Amino acid sequence: MANDVGSTQPRDRRSIRRTNLGVVLRILRDSGPRSRAQIATDTGLPKPTITSLVAELVSLGLVSEGPVQREGAVGRPGTLVHLDGHHICGIGVEISTTYVHVLALTLTGEAAYEHRSAIAATRAGADAVLDHTARSVQDCVTALQRDGRGPIGLTLAVPGVINRLLGTVQYAPGLGWRDVPVVGELRARLRSAPFRLAVENDAKAGAIAEYAQVQNTDMRDMICITGERGIGAGIISDGRLLRGRVGFAGEVGHMPLGSKHRNCVCGRSGCWETMVGLDAVLRLAADGGDDLHDLSNGLETRLADLHRRAEAGDARIRKALDRVADDLGLGIALLADVLNPGVVVLGGYFTHIGDLMIDRVRHTVRDRVMAPDAGGCEVRLSALGFAAAARGGAYLALDAVYQDPSAHSEISPVSLCPPPLHHGPGCAVPGNW
Amino acid sequence: MANDVGSTQPRDRRSIRRTNLGVVLRILRDSGPRSRAQIATDTGLPKPTITSLVAELVSLGLVSEGPVQREGAVGRPGTLVHLDGHHICGIGVEISTTYVHVLALTLTGEAAYEHRSAIAATRAGADAVLDHTARSVQDCVTALQRDGRGPIGLTLAVPGVINRLLGTVQYAPGLGWRDVPVVGELRARLRSAPFRLAVENDAKAGAIAEYAQVQNTDMRDMICITGERGIGAGIISDGRLLRGRVGFAGEVGHMPLGSKHRNCVCGRSGCWETMVGLDAVLRLAADGGDDLHDLSNGLETRLADLHRRAEAGDARIRKALDRVADDLGLGIALLADVLNPGVVVLGGYFTHIGDLMIDRVRHTVRDRVMAPDAGGCEVRLSALGFAAAARGGAYLALDAVYQDPSAHSEISPVSLCPPPLHHGPGCAVPGNW
Repeated sequence: MANDVGSTQPRDRRSIRRTNLGVVLRILRDSGPRSRAQIATDTGLPKPTITSLVAELVSLGLVSEGPVQREGAVGRPGTLVHLDGHHICGIGVEISTTYVHVLALTLTGEAAYEHRSAIAATRAGADAVLDHTARSVQDCVTALQRDGRGPIGLTLAVPGVINRLLGTVQYAPGLGWRDVPVVGELRARLRSAPFRLAVENDAKAGAIAEYAQVQNTDMRDMICITGERGIGAGIISDGRLLRGRVGFAGEVGHMPLGSKHRNCVCGRSGCWETMVGLDAVLRLAADGGDDLHDLSNGLETRLADLHRRAEAGDARIRKALDRVADDLGLGIALLADVLNPGVVVLGGYFTHIGDLMIDRVRHTVRDRVMAPDAGGCEVRLSALGFAAAARGGAYLALDAVYQDPSAHSEISPVSLCPPPLHHGPGCAVPGNW
Repeated sequence: MANDVGSTQPRDRRSIRRTNLGVVLRILRDSGPRSRAQIATDTGLPKPTITSLVAELVSLGLVSEGPVQREGAVGRPGTLVHLDGHHICGIGVEISTTYVHVLALTLTGEAAYEHRSAIAATRAGADAVLDHTARSVQDCVTALQRDGRGPIGLTLAVPGVINRLLGTVQYAPGLGWRDVPVVGELRARLRSAPFRLAVENDAKAGAIAEYAQVQNTDMRDMICITGERGIGAGIISDGRLLRGRVGFAGEVGHMPLGSKHRNCVCGRSGCWETMVGLDAVLRLAADGGDDLHDLSNGLETRLADLHRRAEAGDARIRKALDRVADDLGLGIALLADVLNPGVVVLGGYFTHIGDLMIDRVRHTVRDRVMAPDAGGCEVRLSALGFAAAARGGAYLALDAVYQDPSAHSEISPVSLCPPPLHHGPGCAVPGNW
């Protein structure tokens, strides 16, 4: 039965200890530095157990003990346990149709490395994209190691239908990929990479990053829409990533909302992404010969150009943005009827030109959602832009440590570094997906 | 943080005991009769604690101890603790546009009372419908008491947007209701009803009943679509009822999938329920003067007539069913893209004529869902028909006992009855919504 707390399974002592290590580490992540006595109270575990667990986490290089200065605190600073792990990194890699984005985050959520490189992925084909990706990852690992950091896991974020267990991309129409074993292929190209590799849908990874932004608020129902050539959604429902039966939830780009005469890359017609995807905006905004369609310019450059021309009063571009905003609002209203989110976050290309569309989107949503006051649904632009999916991938890679802190030492031992002198409470790495 | 097991709140001893009473009761519900020693193992609680908890549950009349014959068991029957509570009932009441359905279930999931009465609810208005409902509930309570049973709670299931906290129907376009305080109004009409009253959306209540049908399977992602004049959905995601930010999730009837020229009762146009609701079928199937539109015939009679005529080869009716099946498949495919359910259950009027539509619906779903093999999504007809919402309401009413077994004695003390001699394992009352 759902949520049944009674159905406990017997587990061995080592397994319970691994679980408890994770509990302590997650408390430090979510609630900030604290004394061992406080951790004992938080967990309900005996103090000697906490002392032993903290000692193991210290030996793993994941936490440190020491004086911590807290803002506003009076008197002698206490000896607190706090997350360390600035030498441990999770790597997120987004493969989009137009770029490969690599981002490494430390256990405490700081960016340790970031690089984006352009690639015409659809034309290049899977092999070339994976070669390119492997080189980008190798550069990242080299840079991290030079700084005394070690990666403990990497998650690829790909715009398509993923089989997480097999590590494959089953179907990514935007990339033109079918049944590509990306995890195996990347591992084969990264011979000296003794860390976990995994793959996730890009919109789901992006949603994890966006949800981290509202951590410690009461926002537990959220839809994050990625706008690129394709449109996808990561859905957070009651604080959990919605995956569905076999992990395909969130394929909103193919909702049949449009004209039957507009063909989609998926082979069907009338899909929502033919109305609000990047290609639709560019097609409506300018004819083929226009600079907006010149792929030799970077995507952000073209979007900045489009934005500038819209602000300067280009009637066709303004009309295009209005049209896309209306269709975007229509689909968001539909999703709000189905899911009743508290917020819909628009990411990807919307972060670059969405300020010119958002009022109209909000108007349509208010107008079209069946529940009074749109069921409390706000629409806003992402602050993460194109970096969301890679960031979410890095969080996912780090999450393995929070779930089982002792496991990472079996894969990639790390040397200890001195703890930082100042350490703020609360960390931005979400978990339990 | 989601699922964080570390963030325990301090609670007083009485509160912990109430929680533990619920844990024991839910184990008996979900896993069947068992010895006190087994319950101690299941819960991890000490045996003396279990003895004391079981004694309290016995004194509350919720469980009994005694010999239980188990099929296939050899030797002397053991002394087991098992759910009793056949004298305790939860009542579910569905108010639809065409009928009021009252159903009482015992704690062990047996139907103790059931009655459905026709009413033209929209025309009658809220006051008359609530008068009618109160009389139906009073009849039910009288019958239960005559049988030595007592109701411990009642949940209304209404086709509209609900505020569960306030006990109001905020907006039910099919009924023509806005801000009707149904719980307060019903309580005022039931002067001698010392049990809990609550209200839930009809599709959500129906989904809870449907989910109980697949209990103890690995099906955790399900969409239950209710077909009446309006179309609603109850969504189960990863084993939990999806409510959304303020409880409005599942308003799928107003997804903008249709022609802008077809007006909906909600005041908008093109809503899915104008394409696949009961009115659409009847409108497409026959002209106004036809018997199918004669409200003096019961709905089931009219649907049986429609079914018979379709089977006899009525071309217009067959064409109507094909058209509705295609539009139904389109919307289901959309929901499958968004939610990736393992099964979509069609309830309400679909259970009466859906056998003539289901092949076509399945074809459209296979064809239109973006994920390979429709993401594993099956479409099937409900076995519960129009009874699903009332049944789900009864489950919800009973769930309060499973969450806090000691609370119901404070409201409605019950006399003890001798335990039944034979008691099968596993019970059909789901919980934790």
